Amino acid sequence: MTNSSADQQNTHSKLEEMGRAARAAARQMARADTAAKNRALAAIAARLDAQRDEILRANEVDMQAGRDNGLDAALLDRLALNDARVDAMIEGLHQIAKLPDPVGEIEDLKYRPSGIQVGRMRVPLGVVGIIYESRPNVTIDAASLCLKSGNATILRGGSEALHSNGAIAACIAAGLREAGLPETAVQVVDTRDRAAVGAMVSMPEYVDVIVPRGGTGLIQRISREARVPVIKHLHGVCHVYIDDRADVEKAFDIALNAKTHRYGVCNAMETLLVADGMASRLLPRLAEAYREKGVELRGCERTRKVLTDCTPASESDWSEEYLAPVLAIRVVDHLDDAMDHIARYGSGHTESIVTEDYGRARRFLAEVDSSSVMVNASTRFADGFEYGLGAEIGISTDKIHARGPVGLEGLTSQKWIVLGDGHIRR
Amino acid sequence: MTNSSADQQNTHSKLEEMGRAARAAARQMARADTAAKNRALAAIAARLDAQRDEILRANEVDMQAGRDNGLDAALLDRLALNDARVDAMIEGLHQIAKLPDPVGEIEDLKYRPSGIQVGRMRVPLGVVGIIYESRPNVTIDAASLCLKSGNATILRGGSEALHSNGAIAACIAAGLREAGLPETAVQVVDTRDRAAVGAMVSMPEYVDVIVPRGGTGLIQRISREARVPVIKHLHGVCHVYIDDRADVEKAFDIALNAKTHRYGVCNAMETLLVADGMASRLLPRLAEAYREKGVELRGCERTRKVLTDCTPASESDWSEEYLAPVLAIRVVDHLDDAMDHIARYGSGHTESIVTEDYGRARRFLAEVDSSSVMVNASTRFADGFEYGLGAEIGISTDKIHARGPVGLEGLTSQKWIVLGDGHIRR
Repeated sequence: MTNSSADQQNTHSKLEEMGRAARAAARQMARADTAAKNRALAAIAARLDAQRDEILRANEVDMQAGRDNGLDAALLDRLALNDARVDAMIEGLHQIAKLPDPVGEIEDLKYRPSGIQVGRMRVPLGVVGIIYESRPNVTIDAASLCLKSGNATILRGGSEALHSNGAIAACIAAGLREAGLPETAVQVVDTRDRAAVGAMVSMPEYVDVIVPRGGTGLIQRISREARVPVIKHLHGVCHVYIDDRADVEKAFDIALNAKTHRYGVCNAMETLLVADGMASRLLPRLAEAYREKGVELRGCERTRKVLTDCTPASESDWSEEYLAPVLAIRVVDHLDDAMDHIARYGSGHTESIVTEDYGRARRFLAEVDSSSVMVNASTRFADGFEYGLGAEIGISTDKIHARGPVGLEGLTSQKWIVLGDGHIRR
Repeated sequence: MTNSSADQQNTHSKLEEMGRAARAAARQMARADTAAKNRALAAIAARLDAQRDEILRANEVDMQAGRDNGLDAALLDRLALNDARVDAMIEGLHQIAKLPDPVGEIEDLKYRPSGIQVGRMRVPLGVVGIIYESRPNVTIDAASLCLKSGNATILRGGSEALHSNGAIAACIAAGLREAGLPETAVQVVDTRDRAAVGAMVSMPEYVDVIVPRGGTGLIQRISREARVPVIKHLHGVCHVYIDDRADVEKAFDIALNAKTHRYGVCNAMETLLVADGMASRLLPRLAEAYREKGVELRGCERTRKVLTDCTPASESDWSEEYLAPVLAIRVVDHLDDAMDHIARYGSGHTESIVTEDYGRARRFLAEVDSSSVMVNASTRFADGFEYGLGAEIGISTDKIHARGPVGLEGLTSQKWIVLGDGHIRR
């Protein structure tokens, strides 16, 4: 056996051991009461505050290594911790403590003709594996959501954040201990070996679901290798369709906000679809506003008849997630055209129609198959906080189990409960 | 290329073509209105009735081939169609037509502080692949549930039922056509090549979810190979725990019913757990009733102190799904013992506690991690009809997406809808 495969073997055994411990902890977490879970969240927050200097020192080790290894500025920014970011983690913990506990909630308990009462009780999933990239604050976000929803979790952060995550993990373990909960309810993988990811996603006996957070490459690799269900957040190629019965002012505001409110986010608009009858009224004014914000426009031929100096869009622009001040624009004949374009090029994340026409709004809502579908609102609203989930672990573009922003509920399942009084089946 | 790999290649291309057609049909089915779907269900029922002789003749071809190939009596019984079974299929179609349409249902539509209204709309999953074994009536059950829930479906039945399924498929296609829905909304795979299963479970671009119905071997194979989410129904090792605070009469009735109401079903009790304080009061009388019904008992040592002529249970009995008149019995110290036994040996299907103690009932409900958890009721109630789902496509022992009996709702997903009036994110 070569060294490298011996290493892999070690990593695999280690992950299996973590999986076994997580499975055992999950049973305890599932029956932990709300008060204990909230106590743990508060204790972790207090530890983060007390250990602030250690955390920032550990982060500085990661930052130095990152600089030495030539990480780019964006990556270094995501990796960096400072007082404000530690404060935000602490605030997040307090917010999650305030959210209602989803576990044990019973829905639709009704009597059946046989006399039994049947309903559904919300329960934790069990063991949640989270695989993410450089940002160390995800360690706290993910741990706290899993903890509140009664799950055990195994966290595998980016190897460039190893020291930062280690310091944060120590605070989490101490907080769990203080609250009388098992320390192994949150375990942070502390090896750089990439085989850890492969091991995590192939232990269905120990891991109930994997939530990958990161770039498309990471997520595709995990989906390919996984023997465990994956709740994945792929890319967001979001569309706004401006109908010819749109209110021009609303259309202008929404199209501008959806593109320029923030660029590097998955719910930013990447392609603007405009009904032919609206193009000449709206596009020139909108183009000027985009230009002021420094947004590069790439248009179809009909767009370029109205905006003569617009760059021509190529076929690949329609499926591009720019995450940047770039916007593709296409002029379409009518609603059906717009929906066909979305079905063909969209990523199923978020689409919005701007129209005053009741029937068209109703059709768009019913027929567009995306995790969020909107009428007369900016795609930027597609977000767990805006939807009232309190927090989110990601935005799922899957249709199975959880779709759109995933909060505490997405980290739970349900079981059927039956209450009888000696009832037997006749 | 050998012949066999050329065949596999053909099967793969064929399945891909079916997948593409299903994906296109799914978009039409998703927007089909309730009336059209119900019309299709009624038209299929009428066709089944009109084509009854052709169906029975096709079935006779399968039966003859089955007898020639030496299929065992149980398999032949599952394969056989007769007038009563065709009537049951027709009745099933009418029942599903009567169920409320889940598609388009909107939940929890509320105003958020930003002024937008946010809710969740129920939508079809898209393309559902069903892989099943010999019973041809599953073709109708599965097709009708998928149709009503607005999905397209690809059905792969047992190769021994090829002619029967072909005749039924012709009725389904005719019914869809009559209702103005795409014929490709329900496609039946008509090849014996087992590569069809491998192809179906590895086309995530065309198939959204796979529901296998059949033996554990089939389901494990599919879970291993699948690149598509699987809603699986593994085995049912169901437990009844008789607490020492149980009402003896209720305990007797439930323990007898859960074992003897039907033997070959997944919600039959396979292991009886009895609290030590209850064993001598209950077991002798119960053993006599079981013996009258011809149930073989296999007991732990403490059971055999009370039932001296009981066969000793071996370690493997605790995880056995007998599906037969055999019962394993274990005497335990108390509730925690019983729950430990269930966590260790159970399959997460259905467990019931018999007790008059409020606190213990509450703990059992909260802590036992199975798709159905019951108090003072027979495990035989774990069933879509008994729970009020109207029909079921199977009983999921997964925790992701759908758990327990899966009806129309389990074949749907949700999307978020946002209603605004020009709202932008500040």
